[in-house]
Formats: sequence, C-alpha cells, structure tokens
Amino acid sequence: MSILNKNTALQKLFAMHKSDLAKDEGLAPEQIENGIENGTMVLLGNPNHPNLVPLLVGQPSRIKINANIGTSPLCNSMEHERTKTKAALDAGADTIMDLSTAGDLDAIRTTMLSDWAKPLGTVPIYSVAKKISDTGRKIESMQEDELFKEIDNQCKQGVDFITVHCGVSKVASEMALGPNRTLGIVSRGGSMLARWMNCNNKENPLLNEYDRLLDICIRYNVTLSLGDGLRPGAGCDAGDAAQWEEVINLGRLARYGKERGVQCMIEGPGHMPLNLVRGQIEGIKRLTNNAPLYVLGPLVCDSTPGYDHIAGAIGGAIGVTAGVDFLCYLTPAEHLTLPSTEDVIQGIMASKVAAHAGEVALGRERALEREKSMNAARKELNWEKMTEAAIDPKMVTKRREKHSREEVCAMCGEFCAVKTLRDITPKTKF
Amino acid sequence: MSILNKNTALQKLFAMHKSDLAKDEGLAPEQIENGIENGTMVLLGNPNHPNLVPLLVGQPSRIKINANIGTSPLCNSMEHERTKTKAALDAGADTIMDLSTAGDLDAIRTTMLSDWAKPLGTVPIYSVAKKISDTGRKIESMQEDELFKEIDNQCKQGVDFITVHCGVSKVASEMALGPNRTLGIVSRGGSMLARWMNCNNKENPLLNEYDRLLDICIRYNVTLSLGDGLRPGAGCDAGDAAQWEEVINLGRLARYGKERGVQCMIEGPGHMPLNLVRGQIEGIKRLTNNAPLYVLGPLVCDSTPGYDHIAGAIGGAIGVTAGVDFLCYLTPAEHLTLPSTEDVIQGIMASKVAAHAGEVALGRERALEREKSMNAARKELNWEKMTEAAIDPKMVTKRREKHSREEVCAMCGEFCAVKTLRDITPKTKF
Repeated sequence: MSILNKNTALQKLFAMHKSDLAKDEGLAPEQIENGIENGTMVLLGNPNHPNLVPLLVGQPSRIKINANIGTSPLCNSMEHERTKTKAALDAGADTIMDLSTAGDLDAIRTTMLSDWAKPLGTVPIYSVAKKISDTGRKIESMQEDELFKEIDNQCKQGVDFITVHCGVSKVASEMALGPNRTLGIVSRGGSMLARWMNCNNKENPLLNEYDRLLDICIRYNVTLSLGDGLRPGAGCDAGDAAQWEEVINLGRLARYGKERGVQCMIEGPGHMPLNLVRGQIEGIKRLTNNAPLYVLGPLVCDSTPGYDHIAGAIGGAIGVTAGVDFLCYLTPAEHLTLPSTEDVIQGIMASKVAAHAGEVALGRERALEREKSMNAARKELNWEKMTEAAIDPKMVTKRREKHSREEVCAMCGEFCAVKTLRDITPKTKF
Repeated sequence: MSILNKNTALQKLFAMHKSDLAKDEGLAPEQIENGIENGTMVLLGNPNHPNLVPLLVGQPSRIKINANIGTSPLCNSMEHERTKTKAALDAGADTIMDLSTAGDLDAIRTTMLSDWAKPLGTVPIYSVAKKISDTGRKIESMQEDELFKEIDNQCKQGVDFITVHCGVSKVASEMALGPNRTLGIVSRGGSMLARWMNCNNKENPLLNEYDRLLDICIRYNVTLSLGDGLRPGAGCDAGDAAQWEEVINLGRLARYGKERGVQCMIEGPGHMPLNLVRGQIEGIKRLTNNAPLYVLGPLVCDSTPGYDHIAGAIGGAIGVTAGVDFLCYLTPAEHLTLPSTEDVIQGIMASKVAAHAGEVALGRERALEREKSMNAARKELNWEKMTEAAIDPKMVTKRREKHSREEVCAMCGEFCAVKTLRDITPKTKF
C-alpha cells in the first residue's frame, strides 16, 4: 500500500496543494506524487500548523534552505529571535527550526507556529533536557515517557518536522566515544542520548520504540528528520565507523518509516574535507534509499570560525551536485555564539549561493534562466535587470546607491570592458 | 641553460633568500630550486622594490592570496586605497595589485612600492589607457611604443609582476567577440587590446613583440602574469574556443619566456559552473606546462553580486585541489563598485577559507596541523587555543567578547555536547 494511502493527513495535504506545488516547482504533479511514494521527496506540513504553506523537499524540486533560530541559556530574548526569524524568512529561508533551550519553550514554539506559515522544525529532546536541567537533574535521569510525551505535545502543537536521533544506537554511540574518533560527539541531541545510554546501559528509546514514534507522527503528518547525532565534528573523523554505523541505521529506519506511512528525511554531516564530499554524499544517498538529504554544511574546514558560512557554502555547493536536497544554513557565528540578525542574513545568503551554484552545475532550468537574465543584463549594462536577476536585489541596490545614475560601475568606470567593445563589429562569422 | 643562469636578478634574489624561503615554506631549498627551474614555481621580486620581501608562488609552496587595490574614475581617493591596502595586508594578503585608473598613477605606484615590502603587481596598459583617455583619445590610437615605454617605466620603478595580455591574439579576440560567446570580453585589458586590434587590423603588440617585453622584464626579474584577457565572463562561456585559444597561446608564451630566462605565471578564469572547475584547471595546467596558475575565482555563479566572494571561494577551493597556486581575492563589491575596507577584509578571508579548504583536501601538512590544533582545543573547550588556531583570531575574540569568561559558547550554553560527555567513559576499547 502506498504512503499516501497510509498517511491520511499527507494525502489530504497533497490533494489540496498538488497543483500549486507543481506550478511552484515547475514539475508535473505525477512527478511529485512518484517522489513522495518513492520516499525521494517529502511534503512538509502538519495540519495543526495554522495557515501552513506546505513545502516539498527532494530533488529535482528546488534546493531548500533552513535557518536555525532559538534562545539559549546565555542569549535568551524571544524578541530578538523573532526579529531574526523575520530576517531569515525575508532573506529567503524555506523553513525555520526552533532550537530554543531557554525561556518558555511552549510559548516560543506556539508563537512561532502562529506567526509564520512556512514549515517549522524542532528537536524535541531539547525541551526535555531543559525541563530536566531546570529541576537540577542530569539527562541520564530522563524517562522514556518524558521524551515521547514531549514529542506528542510538539506534534499536536503543529510542528511540521522533528529531528530525532533514532540512528544513534548504543553500539554506534560507543564507537563515537571510543578511541578512534578525535572529537567524539558534537551533536547536542546525540550527546544527550549517548550519555543516557552509557549511564543507564540501555538502548536509545527512539530506536527501541521507533513504532511509538511513528504512531505519533503519522497522525499529524510530522516528517521525521532522522538526525545525524554522530556526524563528524572534525574533518579527520569524517567517514569513520561511527558515522557510517549511524547512516546504516538511518537508511533502515527511513525505509521502515515509509512502509508505515511516515515521511522521512536524513540529516547529514558535518565536518568533511572537500575531497570527501562527493563520495560521502553519494554513499549516504545509497544507504538511505535516496531519501531527501538535509545537510549542515558539509563544513570543509575546522579552523574557520567566523567564516563557517563560507566553508559550509563550499561543501554545500558540491553536496548539491552529489544529491543533497536541503541545506541548513551556517552563519558566521557558528562555533562561537548565537547569530545576530545580520549573521542570519549572511547565513541565508551563503546558503543561497551554495544552492544556486549547485543547481547551475546540475543544469536546473530555473537556475540557468537566472544566469541567462543576468548575463543579458550585463551585456546591455542594464542595472535594473541585473538587480532583478540577482539572488539579493536589495544588496545590489544598496551597493549601487552612490553611483546609481551611472551607466558603468564604480570599479571600472569609463574603462568598462563591455562599454569599450560596444560599438565594435566582430570580423568573424563563427 | 637554466633560468637561474639566464636571469641574474633572479639568481641573486634566490641566493640571498633561499634558506628563509625554505624555512618559511617548509620545503627543501633543492625543491624550490627545481620548481623555479621547471617553471612550476616563480619567485616574485624586483631588486628595485625597496625593502622587498620576495614571495614564492607555486604548489607545494603555500597557496598565495592577492588583493586588488586602486583608484577608479568614480572613486578616486589615494588615502582610502592606502587604508584598504593596509587592511588587506593585515588580514593576510601575500601580494597587492595596484589597479589604479585615476589620479597620479606614477605617484600612487611609487608610494605603494616604498610603503609595502610585499610584492606589488600592476596592469601597465591601464596607465596607458588613462593617459590616452586624459587627452581625449580612444584606445585604438595607442602607439606600440607607448605601451612598451610604460612597461619599462613600471619595471624600473620596482613593480614585481605585471599582467600582460599577450595571449589575446587577433584570432582569439575575434572568437571572443563573435556570435558564439554570450558575454564577449570582460577583462579590461583584454577589451582594450581587442578594440585596438579590431580597429587597426593589427596583431597584439604584446604578442607580436614578445621578445621586447622579455628584454625589459629580465633586467628586473619582473614576473609575467600572462593575463586571461578572454576569460569567460559568464558561466555559459566557460571552456569555449576563445578561452582555449588564449590558453594555448599562454602555454607557448610561458615556455618561450622561461627559455629566455623570464619567469611566467598564468592567469585563469573567470566564470565557470562548479562541475567544470576541476577539468578546466587540469586542462589549463597541462597546456601551460604546470606554470603557477593565478585565478580570479573561478566564480561558480553569475547571479550572486554582493556575494561573489563566496561564489569565488567555492570555485577557488575546488581549484586549489586541481592545481591552482595563487588566488586573486573577490570581494562582496565585485561586479558592483570598488570595495570598501570591510569588503577588502571579507575578500581576503573568503580567499583564506578557500586556500585552507583546498590545502586540507590536498593533505598539506601545515593545513592539517592547524586543523589538529583546533580540534584538540575544541575537545578541551580551550578558547585561547581555539583563537590561536583560527584563520582570523581577531574575529574569534570579537565574537566571544560578551561571553569571554564562559567555558561554553553562547549557542549551546550548558547543553554543549563536549561538556555533556566529558565525564563519560566509553565502554569500548576499539
């Protein structure tokens, strides 16, 4: 039986938005339906999310971009996070993940759900960890029920996708903690579960009771973002046993989830030298049956804090050409602090560059159309059309402000190459 | 006869700095000597440049970064360009190119030469074009002698390397102007020569009288940066006939130049989709006998003005893994205006990310050492050591300012994954 038949919420959502989605993506409705059925596309959308605009993730639909937002114990201002969310969406974010770990998390989440129509993702274990920490306990005291109750709570509230580190098996987490890895576990959720398993000598409840998770998600068409809790946090750990052990688990879980009617995405690494990106992305796609791949980076350097949005754009662009479907932004604040509003914008723009570069390399029609418009405008020195074709028209306008009446730019001035040759007739026909 | 025996200025320079260069680069002196003899390395340095610190370009020496600085008809402030130069050098630029086209160009150039010890490059035809423009003439009225006199003048002044578009043959330039190319010629120098040839129906004097150029350069060990006047200015033009015709010329000219004792680098594209970068760089290196390759970008998108430093870092990083030796920075102002001081810093940093990402992928020892230090510091949550290992320590300090006394960062706070697992003992030995 097909996934659309098993998942009533998804079936309704797809039926309602099929033609809009097809138009927006420039795909045939059948192509989208096949993608969802094959598990190579997911349609994000929880019917409990007010005014939801659902989103398709999975090539050949457009590459999507996520912005991580949220309070932290050291930077706890809901108002600031709201400003950042608006900035991210204005800059072109397709989804927001609320990663808040300080303040009234239920209030933050429900406010975000009612404020914004684009899909919202969360990492439910963060809320559990905060509650536990608030009562002075440690994460190993977490009860399985607490975790599943929180997941149920967030799904009911309308969250569209959740990161759940189901693939962090006891065996895999011990591999990551063992002597063969340089930087252990760098995922917050992954570290919590690893600690819980190590201290309690029990298997990961999200893996052990995976059916319970699926039972919750199918009711609201919540898409599982199968988290990469063991992603390499150092380039030298990329492709190690712990990472692949988890990927193997994720692939099996994604297949089983889909059989039960729940949509699944796969989260991917992480830190990875650029020569490994193509091979690893292809390997992950193979092991996870080409499920939509949602990546952080990949970050092709470890030593570039302050510029990780650029290191991530390098890995992301190559990743897209190898099968990545969904980019989680990295901001210039990564590894250092929570991002400012300006950082958020820079993070989105870097991801847009990566997505566009990847789509151009893949020959995607719309990306090539954009390039064609830009090049035609450049040939005509038509700044209005250049501005329109740019991935950030506002930035072009801002930078041209001082010389907006000039035909040429202030770099070359009268020595503009295009201007120099405008009245020249070539002497060749071919 | 070897290049060192033919080029006395180079021979002296190398003898004087051999051991420092070897130490700085972590290479054996013989390796450097062989590189220079084979033409796979060049040693930038004109004896007339006061207080010069010479620079080696060519893998496996460290990847070098150039910053373009200079006045333009619409932004003509020597003081601003001086501030930008200082910022570029402080941020880590290895060389500066003075591309000024407004003001007293001789004064600007000689001031820069006496102000800064790092190698300075220029594009002599710009000064000729300015003089011609100042007298109300058009570039096609340029006399061959004017060009060679200006080159001689700049070499005498102490310029260390010059961009000369010797490969823009009449045939090649007509290919670029013809119907098979979308965006014609986007190089300023290239467009001037193309116009000159088209209007005068004569061959490029820099090609036609190449020996005259070599005669000037050998006296001062001025390195030729054989310019890519026909580089693609649009991704769809990458790899076209005009581009390769010029590359073929550049390879022949580099070989002949070396035979005559003049060091040569090759300039490379330009706009190029990322899937083409590796193949094109390998092709260019092959056709140019592995001469040091100095690239602008490659820019993997056309539609990213405001973010071309990122699009360029993507191409640059891949390029380095394919053989690129020298990166010309791109700033966020590219295609729009002259860069501000902040743009200059962003441009250098983006190039440093690209260079570092490429060197990590190539397994260069020093790049891996940096990553190792960073990862060890991260494991210990040692912010002092993280700051030291970062490509921009100042940026790390600045972003940590508000929370500098915290052991964790303000993103994860107490939920830091490293902290969560610090007291956990793995249960596995392997």
